[in-house]
Amino acid sequence: MGLLVVGSLGLDTVATPFDRVEEALGGSATYISLSASYFSGPIHLIGVVGEDFPKEYIQLLENHNVDLNGLQIVPGGKTFRWSGVYHYDLNTRDTLLTELNVFEKFDPVIPDYLKKTRYVCLGNIDPTLQLKVLDQLTNPMFVVVDTMNYWIEGKKDEVLKIIKRANVLIINDSEARLLANEPNLIKAAKKILAYGLQTLIIKKGEHGALLFSGDTVFSAPAYPLEMMFDPTGAGDTFAGGFCGYIYKTQDTSFENIKRAVIYGSTMASFCVEQFSTKGLEDLSYLRIKDRFRDFLRLSQFDEQ
Amino acid sequence: MGLLVVGSLGLDTVATPFDRVEEALGGSATYISLSASYFSGPIHLIGVVGEDFPKEYIQLLENHNVDLNGLQIVPGGKTFRWSGVYHYDLNTRDTLLTELNVFEKFDPVIPDYLKKTRYVCLGNIDPTLQLKVLDQLTNPMFVVVDTMNYWIEGKKDEVLKIIKRANVLIINDSEARLLANEPNLIKAAKKILAYGLQTLIIKKGEHGALLFSGDTVFSAPAYPLEMMFDPTGAGDTFAGGFCGYIYKTQDTSFENIKRAVIYGSTMASFCVEQFSTKGLEDLSYLRIKDRFRDFLRLSQFDEQ
Repeated sequence: MGLLVVGSLGLDTVATPFDRVEEALGGSATYISLSASYFSGPIHLIGVVGEDFPKEYIQLLENHNVDLNGLQIVPGGKTFRWSGVYHYDLNTRDTLLTELNVFEKFDPVIPDYLKKTRYVCLGNIDPTLQLKVLDQLTNPMFVVVDTMNYWIEGKKDEVLKIIKRANVLIINDSEARLLANEPNLIKAAKKILAYGLQTLIIKKGEHGALLFSGDTVFSAPAYPLEMMFDPTGAGDTFAGGFCGYIYKTQDTSFENIKRAVIYGSTMASFCVEQFSTKGLEDLSYLRIKDRFRDFLRLSQFDEQ
Repeated sequence: MGLLVVGSLGLDTVATPFDRVEEALGGSATYISLSASYFSGPIHLIGVVGEDFPKEYIQLLENHNVDLNGLQIVPGGKTFRWSGVYHYDLNTRDTLLTELNVFEKFDPVIPDYLKKTRYVCLGNIDPTLQLKVLDQLTNPMFVVVDTMNYWIEGKKDEVLKIIKRANVLIINDSEARLLANEPNLIKAAKKILAYGLQTLIIKKGEHGALLFSGDTVFSAPAYPLEMMFDPTGAGDTFAGGFCGYIYKTQDTSFENIKRAVIYGSTMASFCVEQFSTKGLEDLSYLRIKDRFRDFLRLSQFDEQ
C-alpha cells in the first residue's frame, strides 16, 4: 500500500552565511518523501503546485519512486514560495517572504486507490487539512503528525484534535513548551501525552531528540557535525526517515520506534550538510546504515 | 593514596524560584569531595576556610571519609561567601555578592604525605593556583581540570598551560566556544584537543554532555528531570563523580571514561534535585547504580 505523505511543495530562496540558492526545491512533503524514499516504496505524495513548478523537480521525485498521482497541478497557478535568511549560528532565521499562491486553496483529495493506506505522514500544514486527510482514510493504522508554533497559537483546538487521532507527534522543544504551556520539557511532554497521544518526539536541533511513550523516555544524540550548510527541511527530513523506517519494518514496538528516531536523525544529518534537498538526492542505503552505526558508537556504553 | 581534590569551600546564599537558603555549604572542593566520596576513599581535600566555618560542615565532610588535613583554617579569618539568584528557568543566574575573604590569599600547600598522589581533581580556581598544585606533586598520573569563563578571559595563558598538563578538561559549552574562539562546538572541541589535551568533556546542562578524545566522540544524555531545585554545584558534582569512579576503577580506557561521564551525570542529577549539598548527603551506592542504569535505558538502542 505504501506510505502516504501530505504536505507542502514549494520553491525556496535561502541565504545562509555560506551561500545562497534561488527557487530551490522545498516544502515539507518534498523533504519527507525524498527522505522516506530510501527505506521503501512507494511513497504516495499528496500536495499542490502551480504550472510553473519545474519539470526537473517532478523528475527528481519520480526518480525516487514517489507516486505523484495525488499531486494537484493547478493550471495557470503559481507554486508556493518561501524565502528566508539564516543568522550567523544557523539556529535562527528571518522569513523574508511567504507567498502561499496555489497552496492558499489547497484541498487535499485522496485518490480512491489510496483510501485504505495504513501508514500516514502528515507534514506541517493547517491542522484542518490534516483532519480532512484522515477523514478520507478508511482505516489508518500509524499516523505521524508534524505541526508548528503558528498552528499551535492560531488553531489550538484543531491541533489538539489531530493529536488525539495521531500515533506519533513530532515537534521541536519550543513548540512542545508552547503546546503544553510549561517550561520544563519533561513535564511538557507528559502533559502532551495526556492530551491523548501514544508517542511524542521532541526535536532539539543540535542537541538531538527525545522520545516519550507512556512512562518511557529515550534520548537520541545529535550527529556531531562540524559544518552545517542549510538547516531548511531538517525537521521534515527527520519525519521522513522516521516514517520510512517504520513503514519498511512494519514494526511499531518501542524498541523499533527508537531505531526509527535514529534513522530520522541520520537522514536529517545528511540534509543539513548541503543546500536545499541536495543532501537527499544521491544517498545509498549503505551510507545511511553506516551513519546509523556512527550514532550507535556515539551513544553506547555499558555497565562493565 | 586516594584522590586529591583542590578547590574552594564557601558559604552560599542562594535564591531560586522555589526557595532560598542562607549560608549553606558550598564551594567547588565541597561538591567534588562529597560526590567522589560515594565511589571510594579517601578523598584528600586541599582548601581554605575562616574560623567562622561551621563545625557541622566539617563534620559532614569527615562523615563522608574526606581527609581534611590539607584544609587550612585561618585564625580570625572569614570564609568565602557567594550569593546568587536564579531566574525563572534556572538556566541563568545573577551573582549578588562575591566575598573572597580568606580565599583571596589562598596558597594551596600539599602535605608531604600527599605529594605522591596520582589522581588529582583541580576544581575551578585561579589556574595559577592549579599549576602550583601540580608543581608540588611528584608524579601525577590522571589530572582532571575544571575552569570557567572568568579565567579563560583573564588568564588565558595560564589556562592553556594547565590544559597541557591535564589529562581531562571539563568545561561547559559556552566556555568551550570562548576558549577555542569558535561557535561550532565540534570544531571548538577539536581545536581545544589540539592545544595538547587527551580528553575533553563539554557539559551542556539540560542537554547532557559530550566527550572528545582523539577522533572519538561520545554523547551522554541528560537525566530527564521534571523538577530542578538548585543548579548550584552541578558542574563540580559532575567532576567529583567522574573522578571518583575513575579512581575507584583505576581504569583510564575510553570505554571506562564513558562510564565515568555517566556517573558524573548521575551525581549531578542528584545534586540539582535538592538545595545546596543536600542531594549529596544521604545517597547510597545502590541508588547511584540504579540511576546509572536509568541512563543506560535512556540511551540504548540496537541495530536489530
